[in-house]
Amino acid sequence: MHRKTPTINSQTVIAETRQFRIESLELEFSNGQFRHYERLLRGSSSGAVLVVPMLDKDTVLLVREYAAGLHRYELGLPKGKIDPGEDNLTAANRELKEEIGFGAQRLQHLHTLSIAPAYLEHVIDIILAEELYPEKLVGDEPEELEVVPWSIHKIDDLMMSGECSEARSIAALYLAAEYLRKS
Amino acid sequence: MHRKTPTINSQTVIAETRQFRIESLELEFSNGQFRHYERLLRGSSSGAVLVVPMLDKDTVLLVREYAAGLHRYELGLPKGKIDPGEDNLTAANRELKEEIGFGAQRLQHLHTLSIAPAYLEHVIDIILAEELYPEKLVGDEPEELEVVPWSIHKIDDLMMSGECSEARSIAALYLAAEYLRKS
Repeated sequence: MHRKTPTINSQTVIAETRQFRIESLELEFSNGQFRHYERLLRGSSSGAVLVVPMLDKDTVLLVREYAAGLHRYELGLPKGKIDPGEDNLTAANRELKEEIGFGAQRLQHLHTLSIAPAYLEHVIDIILAEELYPEKLVGDEPEELEVVPWSIHKIDDLMMSGECSEARSIAALYLAAEYLRKS
Repeated sequence: MHRKTPTINSQTVIAETRQFRIESLELEFSNGQFRHYERLLRGSSSGAVLVVPMLDKDTVLLVREYAAGLHRYELGLPKGKIDPGEDNLTAANRELKEEIGFGAQRLQHLHTLSIAPAYLEHVIDIILAEELYPEKLVGDEPEELEVVPWSIHKIDDLMMSGECSEARSIAALYLAAEYLRKS
């Protein structure tokens, strides 16, 4: 059974800040039910990348970075926005150079994940980065990020550390580990 | 190395809608760098639950639900907000009854995940639900959700289906599968 997607009877931007745009939707479902929804739009961004940088077959490089939403440091994968004119692999390589001081000879797109599709338009491309080489670019980070090597097959230990809560990083690590096991 | 969390020099709600609240932050990092950040607050919500309902040792029950952020149907785990006065297990059991027509004799909290901690305050509790029994409660869904049984050890097939993009559901399925393998 595949239902017809609800009809959007009206859509209006009801709030806009430097970083966010909130839209109000009046929806009609295929069974005739009406609902008012709100969702967050991506703004002007061309998308985002989450990078799984493999130092060797087993070791992924994580970063410890301040996360304003939770007001604490989080251990997770390097990530960032795709700049205008960049493709996702170029953006991933630039973010790697800025955040962990490595470029990658080999980059591939594994999956595209959504974050909270019920109310966010945002999606993020998961990029596997292999064959790393040292190269540092200066980014816009307020402070140098701490790089933390971790075994990609010890995701349960990462969860137990209490430092990594981000669903995107966890999903990406499991997906990359599964891909690497099979390849 | 554990850095001192940045100091919040000022914080102001700059936009508020029925569902969202956006806050502006002026931050000072421990190295003296200043930054302007924005983040989305949870509003009045008491939190949220994402439920992994196991029909048997292998079969998880997914739901196909309209996702306004992406304006498409998504296949994922049942989820919902914790109502005032509820704990997370009670909320999980209520959501199960509303969304898939089952209650659970056995509920346990596996992990708490964040979604995009750089700019969202939101977190969600992952609840494993076992020993299901039929019981239907009427919720506030605009339409009956389609329930889709899936093998919890075939997450790669779920990704290949193109119907499941949500990082939270994917992370929760991998974490639950790993927990079940070890228990």
